[in-house]
Amino acid sequence: MALQERAIRTRRTILVAAADVFADVGYEAATISEILQRANVTKGALYFHFASKEQLAQAVLTDQLKSVPDSPPRELVLQEGLDAGFLLAHLLGTGDPMVRGSIRLTVDQGSPHDGLDRRVPMASWVDYNAHLLERAKANGELLPQVDVEAAAKAFVAAFTGAQVLSKIMNNHTDLMERVVDLYRHLMTSIAVPAVLVRLDMSLDRGRRVYEEALELSREPEEAPAAG
Amino acid sequence: MALQERAIRTRRTILVAAADVFADVGYEAATISEILQRANVTKGALYFHFASKEQLAQAVLTDQLKSVPDSPPRELVLQEGLDAGFLLAHLLGTGDPMVRGSIRLTVDQGSPHDGLDRRVPMASWVDYNAHLLERAKANGELLPQVDVEAAAKAFVAAFTGAQVLSKIMNNHTDLMERVVDLYRHLMTSIAVPAVLVRLDMSLDRGRRVYEEALELSREPEEAPAAG
Repeated sequence: MALQERAIRTRRTILVAAADVFADVGYEAATISEILQRANVTKGALYFHFASKEQLAQAVLTDQLKSVPDSPPRELVLQEGLDAGFLLAHLLGTGDPMVRGSIRLTVDQGSPHDGLDRRVPMASWVDYNAHLLERAKANGELLPQVDVEAAAKAFVAAFTGAQVLSKIMNNHTDLMERVVDLYRHLMTSIAVPAVLVRLDMSLDRGRRVYEEALELSREPEEAPAAG
Repeated sequence: MALQERAIRTRRTILVAAADVFADVGYEAATISEILQRANVTKGALYFHFASKEQLAQAVLTDQLKSVPDSPPRELVLQEGLDAGFLLAHLLGTGDPMVRGSIRLTVDQGSPHDGLDRRVPMASWVDYNAHLLERAKANGELLPQVDVEAAAKAFVAAFTGAQVLSKIMNNHTDLMERVVDLYRHLMTSIAVPAVLVRLDMSLDRGRRVYEEALELSREPEEAPAAG
């Protein structure tokens, strides 16, 4: 068990180091030797977990959604969805390597021969948003004309565009502002007014939700000891 | 005069070939020899116009806005703005090399050492949209609470995100659908209802506006002969 735990931790260390390198230099320019140096592990340890740079990058892409803590449950489903986006923006803005690395791998077009499937994280986010909007609809939060599939894609596209624009213009300094602004526009066109007026889209919401999510993620680990 | 015209045409040929290569393989992997081959010009001709690959890429970035024909004037300023976005989506979707190349150069993060200023095209689009929204405001088309600067950034971010998502998921097959959908959401939150109901956001609008813009761009060239 201790061995397995150590292996999981080593795998994670390698993945975070790889994501960090991908975030800094992109997929093409990233080297295994740079990843080894940042992870401070042996070549043998790396190749035990990952066969190639491509496999490392695909694992970073696949783990994009898992790298964001669960958005805490809310009375308003739309608030839960907003919070998930704010959490992602908070992690990106504070330099979380997994989020930075996986988002750069997703958005950089790369070579058609690099074999990376960039659809994995995008499809996961569209699915996540579609499920969430279905729940919001069942909860009576959406205007009647809303097309859930299209709106889910609109939210994913809006976040993506906000982060690309903010990265280019000021290296993510105004990221939260751009994300909040686009979400405000989108919410205005999908939420019923009685819900709209209760949504919290303040600029420090991402930080607050992040702290709350961390608290929540700690609790289940402590619970078994008490039981 | 004929010499100068030929030089302008050669410069353009080189720029389009470079944009095409950047679109296919990105900035890092692009080579001068591949650009020479596609442009079918001599090395001397290329270096007469551009000192380096970096200078070529920066020229492609700078010409992004110029590569899109002027959006024809409309009674509703917001329609003019929508049309500009639809024109850009049409050119991107039909594989225009200048647009494809310059957009890829903008969105790919590249190396911090590549010296490319990706802010140039983004800032031009934000400016373009801000001026347009100011005119729309003066024309009474905007809801009173609209923050023109923020809305301009929201439009640029929305287009960027729509094209990135569509590129990843299906190589731009559903690009126009994604752009139209995001514009619908944004317009709902900024336009007064009497304007909203008159906006044309149909999927074939981009193609129709492109044909119209081509017609308009031909006219001034023919006019002097008649005068």
